[in-house]
Amino acid sequence: MKLTVYLSGEIHTDWRDEIAAACRQMKLDVTFLAPVTDHDASDDCGVAIMGAEPNKFWHDHKGAKLNAIRTRTAIERADVVVVRFGDKYRQWNAAFDAGYASALGKALVIMHGPDHQHALKEVDGAALATVETADQVAAILNYVLTGALPRS
Amino acid sequence: MKLTVYLSGEIHTDWRDEIAAACRQMKLDVTFLAPVTDHDASDDCGVAIMGAEPNKFWHDHKGAKLNAIRTRTAIERADVVVVRFGDKYRQWNAAFDAGYASALGKALVIMHGPDHQHALKEVDGAALATVETADQVAAILNYVLTGALPRS
Amino acid sequence: MKLTVYLSGEIHTDWRDEIAAACRQMKLDVTFLAPVTDHDASDDCGVAIMGAEPNKFWHDHKGAKLNAIRTRTAIERADVVVVRFGDKYRQWNAAFDAGYASALGKALVIMHGPDHQHALKEVDGAALATVETADQVAAILNYVLTGALPRS
Amino acid sequence: MKLTVYLSGEIHTDWRDEIAAACRQMKLDVTFLAPVTDHDASDDCGVAIMGAEPNKFWHDHKGAKLNAIRTRTAIERADVVVVRFGDKYRQWNAAFDAGYASALGKALVIMHGPDHQHALKEVDGAALATVETADQVAAILNYVLTGALPRS
Amino acid sequence: MKLTVYLSGEIHTDWRDEIAAACRQMKLDVTFLAPVTDHDASDDCGVAIMGAEPNKFWHDHKGAKLNAIRTRTAIERADVVVVRFGDKYRQWNAAFDAGYASALGKALVIMHGPDHQHALKEVDGAALATVETADQVAAILNYVLTGALPRS
Amino acid sequence: MKLTVYLSGEIHTDWRDEIAAACRQMKLDVTFLAPVTDHDASDDCGVAIMGAEPNKFWHDHKGAKLNAIRTRTAIERADVVVVRFGDKYRQWNAAFDAGYASALGKALVIMHGPDHQHALKEVDGAALATVETADQVAAILNYVLTGALPRS
Amino acid sequence: MKLTVYLSGEIHTDWRDEIAAACRQMKLDVTFLAPVTDHDASDDCGVAIMGAEPNKFWHDHKGAKLNAIRTRTAIERADVVVVRFGDKYRQWNAAFDAGYASALGKALVIMHGPDHQHALKEVDGAALATVETADQVAAILNYVLTGALPRS
Amino acid sequence: MKLTVYLSGEIHTDWRDEIAAACRQMKLDVTFLAPVTDHDASDDCGVAIMGAEPNKFWHDHKGAKLNAIRTRTAIERADVVVVRFGDKYRQWNAAFDAGYASALGKALVIMHGPDHQHALKEVDGAALATVETADQVAAILNYVLTGALPRS
Repeated sequence: MKLTVYLSGEIHTDWRDEIAAACRQMKLDVTFLAPVTDHDASDDCGVAIMGAEPNKFWHDHKGAKLNAIRTRTAIERADVVVVRFGDKYRQWNAAFDAGYASALGKALVIMHGPDHQHALKEVDGAALATVETADQVAAILNYVLTGALPRS
Repeated sequence: MKLTVYLSGEIHTDWRDEIAAACRQMKLDVTFLAPVTDHDASDDCGVAIMGAEPNKFWHDHKGAKLNAIRTRTAIERADVVVVRFGDKYRQWNAAFDAGYASALGKALVIMHGPDHQHALKEVDGAALATVETADQVAAILNYVLTGALPRS
Repeated sequence: MKLTVYLSGEIHTDWRDEIAAACRQMKLDVTFLAPVTDHDASDDCGVAIMGAEPNKFWHDHKGAKLNAIRTRTAIERADVVVVRFGDKYRQWNAAFDAGYASALGKALVIMHGPDHQHALKEVDGAALATVETADQVAAILNYVLTGALPRS
Repeated sequence: MKLTVYLSGEIHTDWRDEIAAACRQMKLDVTFLAPVTDHDASDDCGVAIMGAEPNKFWHDHKGAKLNAIRTRTAIERADVVVVRFGDKYRQWNAAFDAGYASALGKALVIMHGPDHQHALKEVDGAALATVETADQVAAILNYVLTGALPRS
Repeated sequence: MKLTVYLSGEIHTDWRDEIAAACRQMKLDVTFLAPVTDHDASDDCGVAIMGAEPNKFWHDHKGAKLNAIRTRTAIERADVVVVRFGDKYRQWNAAFDAGYASALGKALVIMHGPDHQHALKEVDGAALATVETADQVAAILNYVLTGALPRS
Repeated sequence: MKLTVYLSGEIHTDWRDEIAAACRQMKLDVTFLAPVTDHDASDDCGVAIMGAEPNKFWHDHKGAKLNAIRTRTAIERADVVVVRFGDKYRQWNAAFDAGYASALGKALVIMHGPDHQHALKEVDGAALATVETADQVAAILNYVLTGALPRS
Repeated sequence: MKLTVYLSGEIHTDWRDEIAAACRQMKLDVTFLAPVTDHDASDDCGVAIMGAEPNKFWHDHKGAKLNAIRTRTAIERADVVVVRFGDKYRQWNAAFDAGYASALGKALVIMHGPDHQHALKEVDGAALATVETADQVAAILNYVLTGALPRS
Repeated sequence: MKLTVYLSGEIHTDWRDEIAAACRQMKLDVTFLAPVTDHDASDDCGVAIMGAEPNKFWHDHKGAKLNAIRTRTAIERADVVVVRFGDKYRQWNAAFDAGYASALGKALVIMHGPDHQHALKEVDGAALATVETADQVAAILNYVLTGALPRS
């Protein structure tokens, strides 16, 4: 079995690399998709390509829609959508992605620390797994693909 | 024309009542749906009906899923989904609802103050209208149903 | 809000009547749908209308498909599907209904005693609520429709 | 033509291997998918990766949902879903899979002994073929792919 | 429970009236839909409204598409689609309707005499019931709605 | 039978009223839906409710999206979508509506004069009927609902 | 561009080979799918694999459903469905396939002689092309893939 | 990531080649699909393959439907649909394609000069990006695939 996995959410830590590295080491057949993780590029892509906007709302609007070409295509293509909520920022786009993926019937894995537990209860409630670490995500993908569990 | 409108998001101010009152005054044929807006009931409904849980995660989990019976049914039934982001709390469930509604192709109206503009750019980017006040939501519903614009 | 609720599963106890009576007492706007609960009619309907079959497989086949006209129509029409697993029989049709409803995205409520807990873990895992009694189902429908919780 | 076939149900006999071996011998272009068939791993996967649960319900719940990542992905990917009901256990998850696959419009093949005939009539009624042996499943896949029938 | 039933196929006998009369007598809550059953109107409707065509192919084409507005709307709206194959004509449109309804997941009931049995095997194979008489269709609708079987 | 009909396209002549009047006279059970037909309101609705925009692109963008709440809801609700191409303006929104309705499987009726025949060939090719006059649309709705043809 | 084409209908002439040979000669990238075209195998496959039936109805039923595993999978996988109506037999299964494919939104090409024109008007009315010869089907596939027209 | 991109609209300039060349230079993994861009072949394909029509309407009708086999297949297969509105012709088929793609949830990019801004406001309102030049389309595809922005 192969899996296509979309890694949504936090872009300021290297959790995507950790998951990918762990899966590579286990030789899993996984294709990872992700949003653009360069914060500045992601913020300014719309005006950089389609022209400046004096009003910040439209500056952001152009960028958000352009990024949506990538994120929606990736979510639709994914078998599993992992959404990571980190410590910084509002991360409403991560929760939006989780809702979008849920309505499409994607298998949802949510990753966050214990302090966000209550605030994420609806998001966790729609998920098939809730974890705290990148290693757990890799262990899940390994189990789903091979049936093997981590050695204790 | 009639509309069914789901009012998602903030539950600590009376914005739902304002919209409903304004629509009633304009005699619009709108059916409003909403989540349970009693914060305590919403938090504890799962354990109140299905039994206590010592672990807060499962306490919340039971409640979140029980609330999902109502919210998902309402979103699927709605023609228009209005999502209000207020000043307090993380409100990830509001963003989740917006993503869920968006994937189902619902007409999305987002309501928030100017300070959340940048953080909500992806959510606004998926919406057909972004507003700040309950009066604007009512004006939108009036225009959609009757074609009439507010007198200036 | 109104709900259409399909009550699937066990046909040898009066759990459907208990739920309906409790909802009637609470004046909830619920339309209940159910399979044919007369065991003999349900078993023999196919041959009674379409002619006898010497082979038991085809006797049952004709009946099962005829009953499917009712059960599939009802599941598709329902907002909530409640599936009750009782003490007798294999009840594979109940689990089939649960899977069918789950794939259609229906809100699933599973009702069974504690001794079936392990055997029903996959079915419970797909549900938005798991309960033991008819009163709990009624309490869930009441909460979903009115936001009110049972008085303790 | 190629086929993707999901083999659901009984995990305590080697029926999956028999089908795969027979298809290999006939050089059929079939990709087989299956649930995790290690009973202990399947039962404990949730807590092994995501942490222990004192309550058996949540222990099972975590596992059932984790397994659902694999089973739902596999069912959605399959052209044909074969569900085997064996002699042991309740096997409600097998019937659940059959209902899930049926609602998605998958071609359903049911495999069971004659003593389960009456109890499985609704499941058989939704199937395109009902058989008793692994050889018959292989003969079906061969016929579907090549048009050849078993030599008598 | 209410049902919407589309009666497709043969237009030269009064089988539709027989079913409707029998259901009326049993006081069933059924809405019947049907194609235009006036043969000449059905053949000439396109050119009568949209202008004559010298070429018979386009004469028929205009009519067939105009009739499709009614038939497709009715099939989509129906819970149950009954298709009657009579003794005359090719009736390919009846078989087309059966295939169309089947792909939409409608409950299919096929009605024909024993001499068409072999030629209709694929159509019968997609149906939930195969009958010979209008009384049997009425008995099916009665059973589906009330659970009552014909008295023998 | 009842029909819901969306009348898309040209807003500067009274073709909608003509169709509605003709249907009323024939006592047809038709619910008509339409876009906002006040040209100025339709152009300025976005800024009137959500605030002025110095850039004409965003002025129009706000209005177009607000109008889409009405038009998409109406198209999804319609059984039949009639699209009228008149003599003035580019009318790309009319062709957009036709494509949108076609992808949703709606029954499409296109209305235009003979001089647009070649330019509208793809749109006509997706339609179930192509007509020139409001009377012809009314005759189609009459035939679809009652089976009666215009007297010659 | 590549195409997957399902060739449904008549199984007693070599029209499928003609189309395939013509496409091969033009080096088109087409994958052809077809039903089992061995009449006897197709009729008897069910009982040959799953056991004899004394009643001809169930003999045929078993076979029809087994064949449906192949035909439905093929139709769902196809971009274009070509349905050929020949001179012999009722061919209701061909019309059923056409209806099934049409409801799934497949591009439909119908192939038949002029004497079937009137009887096939509804089927032709749902098609994107109606032709008489295998050469025309090949020319269509060539045009769709390369834009080249036959030299006159 | 790979993308499949359908390039709809204007066929009299070389904008498709410009985009393809720019993407090739950036070594992007994009498969481009397009309608038949030979104006005469596109107009006459229907009659060239399926026989002459004295009436221009049916001449065009045959061609439009034949072209639809290609265009609909391509739109359904595409991740991104780019629609270019040029200076000549009515281009209603371009707007139809945009509406069709929008209803299927495809990511829509619209390309046109500033003078069409007002007339295309509804089409632009449904798009995720609006641009003027082929270079901008290529920059968008580059950003979506690699996250890189054009150097200023």
